[in-house]
Formats: sequence, structure tokens, C-alpha cells
Amino acid sequence: MPKSFGERLKLAQQVSGSLMCVGLDPDPAKFPKDLQDDASPLAAFDRRIIDATADFAAAYKPQIAFYSALGAEQQLLASIRYIRERAPAALVILDAKRGDIGNTAAAYVHEAFDRYGADAVTVNPYMGEDSVRPFLARPERGALLLCRTSNPGGRDFQNLMLDGLPLYRHVAKHAAEHWNEHGNLMLVVGATVPREMADLRQAHPELSFLVPGVGAQGGDLAALMSAGLDSQGAGLLISASRSIIYAGGGSSSGIRDAAAELHAAINFNRTRPSETSRPTLARRHS
Amino acid sequence: MPKSFGERLKLAQQVSGSLMCVGLDPDPAKFPKDLQDDASPLAAFDRRIIDATADFAAAYKPQIAFYSALGAEQQLLASIRYIRERAPAALVILDAKRGDIGNTAAAYVHEAFDRYGADAVTVNPYMGEDSVRPFLARPERGALLLCRTSNPGGRDFQNLMLDGLPLYRHVAKHAAEHWNEHGNLMLVVGATVPREMADLRQAHPELSFLVPGVGAQGGDLAALMSAGLDSQGAGLLISASRSIIYAGGGSSSGIRDAAAELHAAINFNRTRPSETSRPTLARRHS
Repeated sequence: MPKSFGERLKLAQQVSGSLMCVGLDPDPAKFPKDLQDDASPLAAFDRRIIDATADFAAAYKPQIAFYSALGAEQQLLASIRYIRERAPAALVILDAKRGDIGNTAAAYVHEAFDRYGADAVTVNPYMGEDSVRPFLARPERGALLLCRTSNPGGRDFQNLMLDGLPLYRHVAKHAAEHWNEHGNLMLVVGATVPREMADLRQAHPELSFLVPGVGAQGGDLAALMSAGLDSQGAGLLISASRSIIYAGGGSSSGIRDAAAELHAAINFNRTRPSETSRPTLARRHS
Repeated sequence: MPKSFGERLKLAQQVSGSLMCVGLDPDPAKFPKDLQDDASPLAAFDRRIIDATADFAAAYKPQIAFYSALGAEQQLLASIRYIRERAPAALVILDAKRGDIGNTAAAYVHEAFDRYGADAVTVNPYMGEDSVRPFLARPERGALLLCRTSNPGGRDFQNLMLDGLPLYRHVAKHAAEHWNEHGNLMLVVGATVPREMADLRQAHPELSFLVPGVGAQGGDLAALMSAGLDSQGAGLLISASRSIIYAGGGSSSGIRDAAAELHAAINFNRTRPSETSRPTLARRHS
């Protein structure tokens, strides 16, 4: 019997000792010189990243756009197979931001979970229930719903106020109340606004959040973890892409050092008593 | 010099004598028997659809999910090449509902416009400006922004009221005011709610709308065209997928008959005087 998505997430975090997710954004324009003539440069670069991080990454998040742009679907498949080999407990989150309905949604589900064998996929909420539910129908796979994204344009619509709450809070509330029967729904919450993270944590103590935007997009790790950790000192997957994979010019040691640094920083912030109010964790340490 | 997207849209409508867009949603589970053993069944079915409709389709809208689910990227490429051969003036709209930021958006732009050579791509607005603008940067290519979608879940968030207007109206307003310098932005407006179509037309007399949901999803063509046509009796691309491509069991004659019927119905509604108030057209016919 496959474990539930929640159990698999917990296992991945235990085995890796980590809440860290490594984003695979292989952009050939930024590749280290020694890979630029490789016949399968995306897969080769991914292999380097996976080798350098396999013992402490809880999850990998390949960004499908980089493979799709270049017709490199086979390289994406190879990278996912390599993750399974090197880090069998780690989750594979396909960052595809899908969202469509009916038989189209079914086709996207098939793409993410059957063709690529991902454990989870990022999903856009704009089209509502029938565009999200198909991604949640398999209890052992997860859907990570865009909620508050950390990019500058994130506020254009997500922060519009309705009945005293911004849109992204309505998205979170609606999803948590109506779509999460299997406990396999996570929210994508950007790393740049700890206050919003804190509000979401208070409103949804039971949900896990994927937090991209650490590193290249800025974001204060301590503040955001203090705001976002749940009562168990977990409930977050903290994702970094460019700040890890292009560190040290994309060398193995550069990648490993950057990942180890983030890993250590996450674990430091995970266990220290919070300066701000985070009652349950504070109790754990009192 | 390539024409602007607006000029290309107008030309496509003139050459085809039509506002009709044919959706390519090739779902092998529904394929006619004689294609089920074809080595490239999606491309073969698309070829049949294109042959049957090339002389009166203003646009084709391949739904990328069906190809991605099956690893059939080469068949999608072949179908787009075949459209160029058989209907050189028709627009190719890649229905991919993309939405992401920065270098990821750039990769999706490359996928849609360079890899597949599409003329336009559907885009999701949830992540805001920096997720939409990259798709609008080439004046000869278009972005079709999800606004009000016709699926049941469309109302979950799109119809939430802010400052007296539903979210989808804010999306339309923001996009029209800030992102449409090149005149290459269209809105996706579902066919099921003519009242909402009328409000959008009144607020945005200058924009063109892609209207999916005709046919299999229901929708009253006369009412929606009366609500949505612009002052030139255009401003709409009316898209049908399943109701055309699976007509008559997916036979050439079934497809052609269904497309011809929709084509005729569109042109009938396009030129007859409107019963409701559509002042400019009414003037044209008075």
C-alpha cells in the first residue's frame, strides 16, 4: 500500500533531517563551462546537483518550463529517475503551475503523476474547484496550490481585499475547507512577507506550505520560519533554486556548500526558541 | 516585417470569412476506430480535423495537455506544421494556460513561440504582471488572458466581489490599462454567462475575446454573440472543440458538417440586427 502524501512528506523530512527543497531550474545560459558541450546538458547538470545534495534534501522541485522550452522531456525523465536512485525518500515536486478542467485536467494529472512519476505538482487556483480537484484525487500524491506568490506581480490580484481578507486568504480558506479530504493539499506561500505567512499559519495550523523565494529572490529565513513553522516545528518545505544550483559557478562543491549552509540555517531556526510569539515551539523549549 | 498580432487576427478572420476557432483536444480514448492503431494517432486525427475545416477556420487551438500527457510533442509540432500548410492565414493558439515569472516565464515564452511557433498562448493571471508581460513582449504574438472561465469552478474566485466588481473584471481592467501597449492581449471569456460577456464588452470595447465553451459545455450562441460582438461586428474568436472534432464519431464528414454548422450560425448571428441593444451594429443595419 502506498503511504499517504502526508506520511511521505513526513518521512522525507525525517530521512533527510531537513525541510529543504532543492529547485532544479536548469538554464543552459547559466551552465558551468564544462557542461556546455554535453549532449544532455540539463540531465548532466541535474545529476551534479542531485549528487551534491542527495543526503540532505527532503524534496526536489524540477521546473518543467526549462525542459519544455528545449524539447528536453527525456532529460527531465532521466533526472527524476536519478533522484529516485540517489534519494529514494525525497519527494519530487513537478513545478508546472497547471490549471485546467475536465478531460484537460485529467491529461495534466496523467502527465505529472504517470508520465513523470512526480509525487506532487504545483497548481494554479484561478479556475476553481474543477481545475484543482483532479490533482488531489490520489491520496498518495499532492497538489501544491498557489496562494501568495513572492514575485512583485503577486500582489496585483492576490492582495485585493474582499470582505476584509485578501484574495489569497480566500483561496487558502476555500481550499482547506472544501478540497483537502485526503490531507494532500499544500499551499505555495512566498518567502518575502513574513506577516502574511504568520496570518496564514494562524488560520491554517494543519496545512503545510511550500516556500519558494529563499535565496535569489531575497527573504529573511529566520523571520519567515518563525512565522510559518507549525506546532511541531515543521509544516514547511523551504525551497531554493538559483541560490543553490549556480553557487560557485555551478560546481559540485559550490552547490554542496550552498545547500549545506541553507540546510544548517533551516535547522538552526527550526529548533531555537522564537523571539516572536510562537507559543507551541516556545513551550517545547521551556 | 511581421504584421502586428491585431492585424494577423483581422486577416485570419477575413481569409476564413469566420470568427470560428477549432479546438484540437485529441483524446485517444475517444478516437475513431480507424485511427486507434496509427503510429501517430494524435497527428493523424489532427490532420483529419484540419483537412475538414481548413477553408473556414480563423484559428486552431491545440490543447497542449493532450500531447504532454502522452509524450507526443513531436505530433503537436507536426500538427502545427500541417495547419501552416493547409491554412496559412489561420492563427495557432497554444492552449497551455501558462503563468510563471522571470526566467521561467522566458522559458515558457520560448516553448510556445519558438519551439512550437504558436501565434498566441493562453495565460493565467493569478501571479500578476511579471507573469503575464513576457508573453506580450512580441508585438506579432498574442497572449490570451484567462478572465471569466465557463467551468463550474470558474465562479469560486473569479466572481468574488471587490469594490463592487467581481475579480474577473479587475483582471480585465488591470490588463487593459497596464499591459496592452502592443494591442496583442485578448481575454478568455466563457460562453455560459451572456450578462457577464455584455458587461465586459461595455467596459472594454477595444479588446477581442476568445470564447471557449461553445458546444460541449453548452452556451447560447445568439445571446453570447449579441453580448460580445464589438462595434465592427467582430472582436470575438468563438472556439469549439469536442462538439466539432468528435461529431459523427470523429469522421471527416461529421467534423466538416459540425464545423460548417457552427460557421454558418456564427455568420448568421454576426450580421443579423441584434434584438438587444448593440447600437453600432444596429446602426449598420438601419
